[in-house]
Amino acid sequence: MHYSPEPSDTILVNGLILVDPSTSETVRHRKTVISGNRLARVNVAKETIQNHDNVIDCSDCLVMPGLINCHTHAAMSLFRGLADDLPLGIWLNDYIFPSESKHAGPEFVYLGTKLSAVEMALGGITTFADGYFHMEEAARAAKEVGLRAVLAQGILDVPSRDCPVPGSWRSRVEVFLSAFPKDPLISPALFCHSPYLCGPDTFQAAHQICAEHNLLLFSHVSETTREVDEVSKRYGLRPIELLARLGVLRKGFIGVHAIHLSDNEMDILVGSGAAVVHCPESNMKLASGAGNVQLLLDRGVTVGIGTDGPASNNNLDLFEEMRSASLMGKLISQDPLCMSARTLVHMATLGGAKALGMEDCIGSLEEGKNADLIIVDLNRPHLTPLYDPVSHVVYSAKGSDVRDVIVNGKLVVRNGKIMTVDTAELGSRIRTSAKTIGRDLGIKDYGDVS
Amino acid sequence: MHYSPEPSDTILVNGLILVDPSTSETVRHRKTVISGNRLARVNVAKETIQNHDNVIDCSDCLVMPGLINCHTHAAMSLFRGLADDLPLGIWLNDYIFPSESKHAGPEFVYLGTKLSAVEMALGGITTFADGYFHMEEAARAAKEVGLRAVLAQGILDVPSRDCPVPGSWRSRVEVFLSAFPKDPLISPALFCHSPYLCGPDTFQAAHQICAEHNLLLFSHVSETTREVDEVSKRYGLRPIELLARLGVLRKGFIGVHAIHLSDNEMDILVGSGAAVVHCPESNMKLASGAGNVQLLLDRGVTVGIGTDGPASNNNLDLFEEMRSASLMGKLISQDPLCMSARTLVHMATLGGAKALGMEDCIGSLEEGKNADLIIVDLNRPHLTPLYDPVSHVVYSAKGSDVRDVIVNGKLVVRNGKIMTVDTAELGSRIRTSAKTIGRDLGIKDYGDVS
Repeated sequence: MHYSPEPSDTILVNGLILVDPSTSETVRHRKTVISGNRLARVNVAKETIQNHDNVIDCSDCLVMPGLINCHTHAAMSLFRGLADDLPLGIWLNDYIFPSESKHAGPEFVYLGTKLSAVEMALGGITTFADGYFHMEEAARAAKEVGLRAVLAQGILDVPSRDCPVPGSWRSRVEVFLSAFPKDPLISPALFCHSPYLCGPDTFQAAHQICAEHNLLLFSHVSETTREVDEVSKRYGLRPIELLARLGVLRKGFIGVHAIHLSDNEMDILVGSGAAVVHCPESNMKLASGAGNVQLLLDRGVTVGIGTDGPASNNNLDLFEEMRSASLMGKLISQDPLCMSARTLVHMATLGGAKALGMEDCIGSLEEGKNADLIIVDLNRPHLTPLYDPVSHVVYSAKGSDVRDVIVNGKLVVRNGKIMTVDTAELGSRIRTSAKTIGRDLGIKDYGDVS
Repeated sequence: MHYSPEPSDTILVNGLILVDPSTSETVRHRKTVISGNRLARVNVAKETIQNHDNVIDCSDCLVMPGLINCHTHAAMSLFRGLADDLPLGIWLNDYIFPSESKHAGPEFVYLGTKLSAVEMALGGITTFADGYFHMEEAARAAKEVGLRAVLAQGILDVPSRDCPVPGSWRSRVEVFLSAFPKDPLISPALFCHSPYLCGPDTFQAAHQICAEHNLLLFSHVSETTREVDEVSKRYGLRPIELLARLGVLRKGFIGVHAIHLSDNEMDILVGSGAAVVHCPESNMKLASGAGNVQLLLDRGVTVGIGTDGPASNNNLDLFEEMRSASLMGKLISQDPLCMSARTLVHMATLGGAKALGMEDCIGSLEEGKNADLIIVDLNRPHLTPLYDPVSHVVYSAKGSDVRDVIVNGKLVVRNGKIMTVDTAELGSRIRTSAKTIGRDLGIKDYGDVS
C-alpha cells in the first residue's frame, strides 16, 4: 500500500528490525513511518513510501520496541551508593529512613525522578512504573524528560514522608489524584507498600479506589522469607493467599518480587489475572532470594522485569537486568536452557506492556500502536560479529549501546544525547542536594571531583 | 620532593584517585607523573611538579589501576552469540567443536584475539590472561592493541586444532615457545585444559616445562559436578586432590573456576600457594554452579576474576563481571555483606596481579610500578550523585564509562576511542570470517546490517 508521508512524519530506514517480541524474529529493516505519536507503517517496502526530509538512517543498528521498566523507585537515585554492603537493618535504619524522613520532600522526588528518567531514557527505557511519595512531582519530572510512565502513590499504615499521620493516606491519595497532570504519557496508580506494612482494610480500600478510577494497584509481595513468616504468623495465610482472600489479587494488580511462593500460591497466581514483576539484581544484592520465574511464565502468568530503585541495584540499565535475570535463572534452576534471550526480550517489552495493561498501545512495533522504539547501535566491538541480534541484546549489549530513543513519536535521545533536559543544570542541582544528604550522615564529601 | 618532568613524560591532574586497592581509599587527585613506562610520582602536591605540555585533565574522573582479566579465550569472540540457550552437549558438539575444527586456525586466533583485546581495552582492562590454540598469533594481536597479556598455549590429550596428533603436544609447545615474540608486555604460559582432558603424565610434564622456563601453568578445574564425578571415578581423587598428588598445585599454578570444592580440597588449596580465578557470569550462564569465593578469600587464597571466553559470557566487561560476582555471592550465601565492592575492586586489580605473579609491577598505583591505569568518567547520570566511588565502580559503572586507558605508559584508549587499531578494517575482516563460520552452520546471514 502506498503511503504519502506528512511533512511532520519521521521515516526510519535500513538496519535490522525486531517487530514482534512474541516471535523474536529479526529481519532486515526496510522503511518505517512514524506519523504523529503512532506507527503508521512498519517495515514496508521502500518504494511504497515517498521520499521525505525527515529520515533517520538505522544502518548498522537494530530497531526494536522500547524497553519497559516495570518497577523502580526513581527518586531514590539521590541515595545511589550512599551505603552499600551493609546489613539490611543498618542500611534502612541508619541511612535510608533518616535520610528519607529528612530530605525526601517534593523537590527531592522531582530531582531524583528526573535524574533516573534521564538515565532510563539514555538506556533505551521508554516506559517505567514507579512507586514512591509525592508522586505528582514524579509526574512533573517524567513529563519533562518525555518518558511514558505509570506513577504510583505509595501507601503505608505507618507514618511516611508525605503522610505523617497513620491512617490518613486516603486524603493524601485524593490530593495526589487531583494534582496529577492530565497527560497522555503518564498515568496515576496506587502502591500499597506490602502485606506487612499495609493491613487488610488498607489493601481493600486502595483496591476500591483503583476500581473506581481504573488505576493499577501495585504491592511488594513475598520478597523475603522474613516477610512470609511475619505475614503467615499474623494472618495464618501466606502473602499471596492473604491478598487473594482480600479480593485484590485480580487483573490490574501487580505483585513486585513474588519470590517465595508455595505451590498453593503459585496456583492462586496462575488463575488470578494478577501480574508479577521480577527484579533480579535487587533480589541478589539484598540477598532476598530467587524464585522460579520460568515456571511462572510457563504456567501463563504475565511477568514484567524491573530494575527496582537505584538505592538497591544501583543502576537502571534494563539490558543488564535482562542478562542478570537470565544468568540468575540458569544458575538457580541448574538449567542453561531456561530464561532464554528470547524470553527476556519479550519480558522487557511486550510482557511488561501486558503487566501494565498497555499491550494495545506499546510493547511491539505494530501499525497503529504508539511509536515507542529504540535504535541500538550494533557496530561495537562487543556486539561483533552478529549471528543473532536477540542474543546480543540480552547477553552482550548495555544501555550505552542505545543510539536513539523515540517515545510517543518524539525523539528523546539522539546519538546518545538526551534531547529534552539540560543535564549540566540537573547535575549541578543533584550535587547540591547530595551534599546536604551526605553531610547529614557524616559521609565524606568528594566535592565536584575537579 | 621536587620533580622535573622529561618532555616525554605525561602528567595527570585533578579528579579522584584510587591508589591502593588494598585499602580502597579514594582521595582527591593532585598530580601523577608517568615517565616512560613507569609511575614516577603518584598523587603528589601540584607545586612540586613543573608545568608541562603533556597533561591529561582528569576532572570529573576516577584514576585507578587498570583492570586485570585473569581468564578468557579471547579468540572465541568470533563465536560470540553463535548458539546460545542450548544444552551444553549440542552447543559443543553441533556448533563450537565443528566450527573450531574447521575455522580456528592462526588467522582466526589473530583476528578474534584482536577484536577481544580492543573490547577489553575500551572497557578498562589493561592486562589479560588467555588460553587457546596458536597462541603466538594471540601474541601478535595483543602486541598490536598494546595490552599486557599472559598467553597460554592450550594442551589436551585429545586431538586439538593446532595439535591433531594426540600425545604430540610437546612439539607444539616447543614451536610456541620459540615463535613467541620477545616483548616486555606479553608472557607465554601453558594451559592444561582440565583434569578430565589431560592425564597425570601431561600435567606433570607441563609443570616441568613451566618450572624450567619460569612460566605460569593454568587449568580449568572443578567447574562442573560432572567433572568432579568423572575425575573421582577415574582416579579415586577429586580434581584438586589429584592435582596436589601430582605435585603441580603450587605457586605459579592457576586453577580456573574451582567451584565444586570439598572441605579437604579447600584445605589443600589454602596451603598450596596456587591461585584461583572466579568467572561468575560464565558459571551462571552455563549453569555450572556457584562456589564459596568469599571463603576462599577469607582463608587467604589469592583469587582473581575473569570473564571467561566471549562464546560463553558473551562480553568482556570486567565492571559487569565484578558486579555479577558480588550479586551472585550475596545470593548464594544469603548474606548481603559478602563479596563487597571493596573486595571486588581488589580482586579485579591487585588480586588479579597476585594471581598472575605480577604484583610487583601492576595492580596498584605505586611509584616505580608500571604505568597501567584507567581514567573512569564519573560525570554520567548513572554515576550521579557520588557518595562512594568504589561502590559506583562495582554497582553502577560499565566498561563504556572508561574514558582513557594507559598501558605501560602508553595511551591505548583516549576519549573512549582505541588509539592503536583501525577498527573499521578489523570489523570488516571479522565480518568476512563470521560469514563463512555462520554459513557452514546454516545460520541466517544478516549481512552488513545496512
